[in-house]
Amino acid sequence: MMTPHFVTYSHKDAPAYGLHTGDGVINLSAANPHWPTLREVIAADGLKDVFMQAAGRQADLPLEAVTLQPPIPAPDKIICVGVNFPDRNAEYKDGQAAAGRPSLFIRFPRTFVGHGENLVRPPESEQLDYEGEIALVIGKGGRRIPVEHAYDHVAALTLCNEGTIRDWVRHAKFNVTQGKNWERSGAIGPWLVPFTSAAQLDDIALECRVNGEVRQQDRTSRMIYDFRYIINYVSTFCTLVPGDVLVCGTPTGAGARLDPPVWLQPGDVIEVEAEGIGILRNGVEDEA
Amino acid sequence: MMTPHFVTYSHKDAPAYGLHTGDGVINLSAANPHWPTLREVIAADGLKDVFMQAAGRQADLPLEAVTLQPPIPAPDKIICVGVNFPDRNAEYKDGQAAAGRPSLFIRFPRTFVGHGENLVRPPESEQLDYEGEIALVIGKGGRRIPVEHAYDHVAALTLCNEGTIRDWVRHAKFNVTQGKNWERSGAIGPWLVPFTSAAQLDDIALECRVNGEVRQQDRTSRMIYDFRYIINYVSTFCTLVPGDVLVCGTPTGAGARLDPPVWLQPGDVIEVEAEGIGILRNGVEDEA
Repeated sequence: MMTPHFVTYSHKDAPAYGLHTGDGVINLSAANPHWPTLREVIAADGLKDVFMQAAGRQADLPLEAVTLQPPIPAPDKIICVGVNFPDRNAEYKDGQAAAGRPSLFIRFPRTFVGHGENLVRPPESEQLDYEGEIALVIGKGGRRIPVEHAYDHVAALTLCNEGTIRDWVRHAKFNVTQGKNWERSGAIGPWLVPFTSAAQLDDIALECRVNGEVRQQDRTSRMIYDFRYIINYVSTFCTLVPGDVLVCGTPTGAGARLDPPVWLQPGDVIEVEAEGIGILRNGVEDEA
Repeated sequence: MMTPHFVTYSHKDAPAYGLHTGDGVINLSAANPHWPTLREVIAADGLKDVFMQAAGRQADLPLEAVTLQPPIPAPDKIICVGVNFPDRNAEYKDGQAAAGRPSLFIRFPRTFVGHGENLVRPPESEQLDYEGEIALVIGKGGRRIPVEHAYDHVAALTLCNEGTIRDWVRHAKFNVTQGKNWERSGAIGPWLVPFTSAAQLDDIALECRVNGEVRQQDRTSRMIYDFRYIINYVSTFCTLVPGDVLVCGTPTGAGARLDPPVWLQPGDVIEVEAEGIGILRNGVEDEA
């Protein structure tokens, strides 16, 4: 059976969700007005139901007619993990030992575009940088979720280019908020892949390419804090709810770490790829 | 003329907003279903309109019958400024000079309760701490708002006890996310005061008391980054929208800074007071 790829898209500025068929989309939102977005579908554990509705159908629209959006357009929370692959701590060159717990920061939804859209480089900085990551979408909510049950709370997987304005990350004393929250500086997508088996996460290849050149490459089995622990740790202080997005960290090799650093330029193409999830591809443009 | 005090409250678990009369509330939401919360009232520049509707009316409910909530129940963004009063940088004792730009972090709405509710101390930590602050509520949205026009974008003022689980602030390498996002660890309120004059912000007294003892006391004229600059700086990277809340920093004297540190205990009463805005009062309880 094919793996369903659920997408959120707009067509003539109207938002919708549906199934990606490879060369088009099957609209699934028109028949499900009680679920306005994929967040509500997931909250109702309805991914299978809407997938069944697509059986035997042809695409309603060709890909060229739609603009893909981040799959969950308005999550309650987007929480990102920093410094989560080997050698990433050393890259910081700040003489500090790795922290004993994951670094976390928050991004607002409007900092992301969907697959195929351009990331935006603002006039205030030339230091737009990529970070390829795997993102979990929470299904069943919860607080203080035990590690051994963590995967029961994952509804779907997607990819993130956790794009960063690098110099603004270092503006202040104890956070990265501003460098991580420029509008349209990152991307989430291309789609949601339903999560049904631990093998989809535990040891998969993650790679990020710029103009075809591999810049980041690692495997999830080497993560410092694994997916189960991240769910456990984050849910200790806050209640996870359906549709929450956890962005789980990037391998070594962002442009800031090259010597000399190499920043993204208008016209560059960045691809984030993970085994079994897909490829998230975005260009770059200067802010109009 | 009396200064209007707009409140969000629940009565028998039903949410509503209205006017605080001193000993009761006048319901203003029932007559304005097109504006479900004060966020939509502010987005429509409707505070004056709903205030006019209250003219001559008596309270619909006594205070004892309602539970006050944070005035904007679901802002698009809550952005907090760290280290923004003199001597606060020195308190960090990390040997680092003050940063050249404000430290910013993000809190989720559910980390706050309303006036009169108890802050919650979780079983994971004894280090619940207070931080008294002034919060701006954005009216007219915007991006890259110039300093000289910044106050045109402020709709209302309120207070924040930016309650913090102190040891979780130091869990990780470069952020304070987790120590600032425990559920019900802080408070916003008691109400919104419409902002009509720079004199309401430029040099007002801000104080925080624990069980009647003054722990924090300073004036806004001494802030390192003033309100206008904060609006300008934050709006550089993200679009502010109506109802956004900017929490603008706390004076020296949080419990973590006492020697030895003194943490909040169940039964403590914390009052955050600022001239012309009011008093935000909360107790403390252990998580059930």
